[in-house]
Amino acid sequence: MVGTRTARTRKTATRKTATRKTATRKTATRKAAARKAAARKDGLTHFDPAGRARMVDVGAKAVTQRRAVARGEVRVGPEALAAIRQGTGKKGDVLAVAQLAAIMGAKRMPDLIPLCHSIELTGVDVRLEAVANDGGPGGRVLIEAAVRTTGRTGAEMEALTAVSVGALTVYDMCKAIDRGMVIGPVRLVEKSGGKSGEWRREGEEEWSSRA
Amino acid sequence: MVGTRTARTRKTATRKTATRKTATRKTATRKAAARKAAARKDGLTHFDPAGRARMVDVGAKAVTQRRAVARGEVRVGPEALAAIRQGTGKKGDVLAVAQLAAIMGAKRMPDLIPLCHSIELTGVDVRLEAVANDGGPGGRVLIEAAVRTTGRTGAEMEALTAVSVGALTVYDMCKAIDRGMVIGPVRLVEKSGGKSGEWRREGEEEWSSRA
Amino acid sequence: MVGTRTARTRKTATRKTATRKTATRKTATRKAAARKAAARKDGLTHFDPAGRARMVDVGAKAVTQRRAVARGEVRVGPEALAAIRQGTGKKGDVLAVAQLAAIMGAKRMPDLIPLCHSIELTGVDVRLEAVANDGGPGGRVLIEAAVRTTGRTGAEMEALTAVSVGALTVYDMCKAIDRGMVIGPVRLVEKSGGKSGEWRREGEEEWSSRA
Amino acid sequence: MVGTRTARTRKTATRKTATRKTATRKTATRKAAARKAAARKDGLTHFDPAGRARMVDVGAKAVTQRRAVARGEVRVGPEALAAIRQGTGKKGDVLAVAQLAAIMGAKRMPDLIPLCHSIELTGVDVRLEAVANDGGPGGRVLIEAAVRTTGRTGAEMEALTAVSVGALTVYDMCKAIDRGMVIGPVRLVEKSGGKSGEWRREGEEEWSSRA
Amino acid sequence: MVGTRTARTRKTATRKTATRKTATRKTATRKAAARKAAARKDGLTHFDPAGRARMVDVGAKAVTQRRAVARGEVRVGPEALAAIRQGTGKKGDVLAVAQLAAIMGAKRMPDLIPLCHSIELTGVDVRLEAVANDGGPGGRVLIEAAVRTTGRTGAEMEALTAVSVGALTVYDMCKAIDRGMVIGPVRLVEKSGGKSGEWRREGEEEWSSRA
Amino acid sequence: MVGTRTARTRKTATRKTATRKTATRKTATRKAAARKAAARKDGLTHFDPAGRARMVDVGAKAVTQRRAVARGEVRVGPEALAAIRQGTGKKGDVLAVAQLAAIMGAKRMPDLIPLCHSIELTGVDVRLEAVANDGGPGGRVLIEAAVRTTGRTGAEMEALTAVSVGALTVYDMCKAIDRGMVIGPVRLVEKSGGKSGEWRREGEEEWSSRA
Repeated sequence: MVGTRTARTRKTATRKTATRKTATRKTATRKAAARKAAARKDGLTHFDPAGRARMVDVGAKAVTQRRAVARGEVRVGPEALAAIRQGTGKKGDVLAVAQLAAIMGAKRMPDLIPLCHSIELTGVDVRLEAVANDGGPGGRVLIEAAVRTTGRTGAEMEALTAVSVGALTVYDMCKAIDRGMVIGPVRLVEKSGGKSGEWRREGEEEWSSRA
Repeated sequence: MVGTRTARTRKTATRKTATRKTATRKTATRKAAARKAAARKDGLTHFDPAGRARMVDVGAKAVTQRRAVARGEVRVGPEALAAIRQGTGKKGDVLAVAQLAAIMGAKRMPDLIPLCHSIELTGVDVRLEAVANDGGPGGRVLIEAAVRTTGRTGAEMEALTAVSVGALTVYDMCKAIDRGMVIGPVRLVEKSGGKSGEWRREGEEEWSSRA
Repeated sequence: MVGTRTARTRKTATRKTATRKTATRKTATRKAAARKAAARKDGLTHFDPAGRARMVDVGAKAVTQRRAVARGEVRVGPEALAAIRQGTGKKGDVLAVAQLAAIMGAKRMPDLIPLCHSIELTGVDVRLEAVANDGGPGGRVLIEAAVRTTGRTGAEMEALTAVSVGALTVYDMCKAIDRGMVIGPVRLVEKSGGKSGEWRREGEEEWSSRA
Repeated sequence: MVGTRTARTRKTATRKTATRKTATRKTATRKAAARKAAARKDGLTHFDPAGRARMVDVGAKAVTQRRAVARGEVRVGPEALAAIRQGTGKKGDVLAVAQLAAIMGAKRMPDLIPLCHSIELTGVDVRLEAVANDGGPGGRVLIEAAVRTTGRTGAEMEALTAVSVGALTVYDMCKAIDRGMVIGPVRLVEKSGGKSGEWRREGEEEWSSRA
Repeated sequence: MVGTRTARTRKTATRKTATRKTATRKTATRKAAARKAAARKDGLTHFDPAGRARMVDVGAKAVTQRRAVARGEVRVGPEALAAIRQGTGKKGDVLAVAQLAAIMGAKRMPDLIPLCHSIELTGVDVRLEAVANDGGPGGRVLIEAAVRTTGRTGAEMEALTAVSVGALTVYDMCKAIDRGMVIGPVRLVEKSGGKSGEWRREGEEEWSSRA
Repeated sequence: MVGTRTARTRKTATRKTATRKTATRKTATRKAAARKAAARKDGLTHFDPAGRARMVDVGAKAVTQRRAVARGEVRVGPEALAAIRQGTGKKGDVLAVAQLAAIMGAKRMPDLIPLCHSIELTGVDVRLEAVANDGGPGGRVLIEAAVRTTGRTGAEMEALTAVSVGALTVYDMCKAIDRGMVIGPVRLVEKSGGKSGEWRREGEEEWSSRA
């Protein structure tokens, strides 16, 4: 689907990483060969060639700073929108509860997604905002989660999980008012760090432009 | 938003429930008054009148059989769709992994959603299916979760969480092929049991009609 | 220590409970005998006479509505107090974060306390308030958690755990300002329901009198 | 509150850390600026300037050996004290159960405290001891937890959580004897490692002096 | 495999259960028919006829007292045996740690076994004992877990999980001495309560005969 | 018990590790002395000399690539064997469910084993296969788990836990057919990385030789 994968000049590559790369070259080369042999043509890396699910070996990957940003929405009716907006920053703040739930959800990701690695998260930022629809009743709760890690795999799943848990919490808080709320589109917006470099979804505006 | 709330004749009301209702009438009446006093005009039941978040007291609610059905989708590009479809029922079955993750996700719900009660789930059914888009590349993974409980609160959040975790797992399994996948709309489709009776989202077809 | 255990007239005893008691009398009598035989003279019910830790069998206990209230404090210096107070109800609300953590902590209790039963909580209410010391710098964050359950054992441990987790969260949020904060006294304040009846700690004022 | 923050000469600084610092200087400088811009005047680092709760980004912090020591007490009546003491090291050892619970509690900390990072603990030591009050009935269970980590943030919260969970477990084991037990003061006693250096609470004796 | 399934006269059937059965007869009959239609000829109840994994619906099952007993062993070399035995009941008690781990493991079962229901455990008893081999070096740590529940499904999986976690903990505690320890046979020994009645494995002696 | 511990030439030792070793020599020497002082003659490293359980300090251990392989079996009767085999790779695949459970079980290990460190797993591979007994009814489900980590302690417990959880899941899936299934022998088969070097159990064939 949409998205650009730009070549990435690693200007921030540290000497430490360079040293490690040299030192572990033999191991890495051997591993890369093994990985290639084990690679599936269909790209489903979570399965080995025999079709067995596995937690992919990332032991040879570099420890780099990685970041992932995901976004999502909850579409809400006019009553729920009003209830959310009147509470924001005051008494009964739906968005504040959902924000905490989203941050904690990022930490729980490895318990939820079967084949994901558990990595050390170094930072999680979550924003929520309720906006009214243009020229129509109801509106949307916008959610954005930015997750940073210093590990061997990216933090995409943590960011997407944070957004999903935040959205589910908005639903839970407002379901007595409106059972018809709809969650989505939940999607990755940006990703940096690691071998695959930067990725950015096309057509996503800066968050600040929405308020 | 859309959805019909039909009056519900409780034909399956058991004598046991009747007996309990009588016996606990005084308590219930007192509690109902307290609840009314504590009710918020805006319908945000998870906050008390002072704006403090709370786990709402459901101790006076009847223990009945409740059921909730939720649905969601993951929009996938043509390569991910092909990879998913070739594995289904054979080697490397993305949908089978996501299905298990969804069932386990239903059980983890109370760990994720801050103010939700932990209830005893009596059954969880999850279905996934990958369908191609009509007249265009790519397709969608359809997910449906039906959760049953015998408790004092409904299972909507478990059903929605199951769908979300299933969708996130599909994303995780295919993200090496396609980072642009989009999750949603995730929504409640049906709910029965409990005081508020049945609710059914309009415009949802039977699952069998999709295959 | 201090506290009064008053005889309790179970005015709310339901017919259902009465029926059950009759029906299961034989079993109960046999079990009670077994329990007596297994009782320890020292009152440490979590050990059997041989000294083995156990999760005590509560299968013969009545399912009744039970409630427990616990309280605790965090003693804070003047800077932390000011930071907490300026955020309350507005931007950066330490107490709102701690309150949610406390509610979620009640749910996690069985994961933490080795020999405790996991019971269905029907409601959790948590209050926090920051008060200045009379005639001196700094102050205290007061925490109260009321937990209700419809189960076979009481909710004391859930209430105490909620207060402890709330207090730890206040510490975490303010520790960059003041590492010297002190948590305690954390104590049970009130307990009702179950065979042992009501218990109330002497000398505890109503919460409302503090503000 | 009380406590001394002494300047700390990092004699154990390794060449590796030195190398990393140089290499990542540009990044670090940029980040420090961003952090300063994002710093709150009130010191509540867990909130951003807009008041949104966040898991603070520690990605630029050094990986060093850190250690934190926390202490707490449970005040117990004479019967509970006798029961605890007669079991110690023999049959029905309350303190042994609480000690294990405390160690496991340290590991569960990130599940409990919403905005805390999950870090790799390298060692946890917990001690408990029951002492009689001087010239009066009853006594206290003293608890100390020392937690070591090799990470980007300190282990204060793990140490405090360990002590709290240990204290709650003592309460649970003895509550059939004495509901009036009181937990606290739970407090940080010592902290070393990391940029803020050593911190030590005044007036705390060595543990060995208590027995 | 071995085991006898004896017809079971439900002498302890309570009036309450009788009442409920009558009242919910219509529902139950309908459900039973649905279940029969959905039953698999191969007996793999955790899959539906289409092969989809599911958490089986137990909503129509009676709430009865159920009990399951499981056993297992860890075969240990002479050094590990000596270390375990010298610590028992004194300093460094491997079996006491394993016993607690086993009890907590029973509570964690629903997190581990994907399609299992989470049920309310009413009691858990775990015993461990180290015995020397007859006429040979080394010996065995015997483990027995008895789990009781008042729910809609049995507690076999909790009992087996408790034994497994206890055995793994013995391994962990002694692995610095002996990496060659072997866990097993872990097996169900006894089961009672529920529709399928009692089951007892042949050839299992009473625990007391072993000491 | 059986097993060979071969001297290990660390050919893959990186310069980075060398640098660290030099730099932290003073600290390490001091710590080693402390450790020796604290070492127990009986080899139960999880206890200190006073008999207190502890999470052993591994902060001075090198971060190296480590790997552990464990194996186990579930002995099944002929009906269960037939049900498992007919589902494999098709509808109702018991082994696929157990495989996922085993991988997730490896991640949950630190929640289960009280004194184990939580380490970052870099890869988990699990294989299951159902084989018929030679010349007799019934058969065995063979399970192998290989776990890799880049940490300060080995992954033996994760590998053994993965096998145990996989075996328990096979039991759960088939228990409606056969309650008499037996789990075991579960054992460590191979271990590499870390100071203690390689260890390999004698008499274990290559997995491929079994099919």
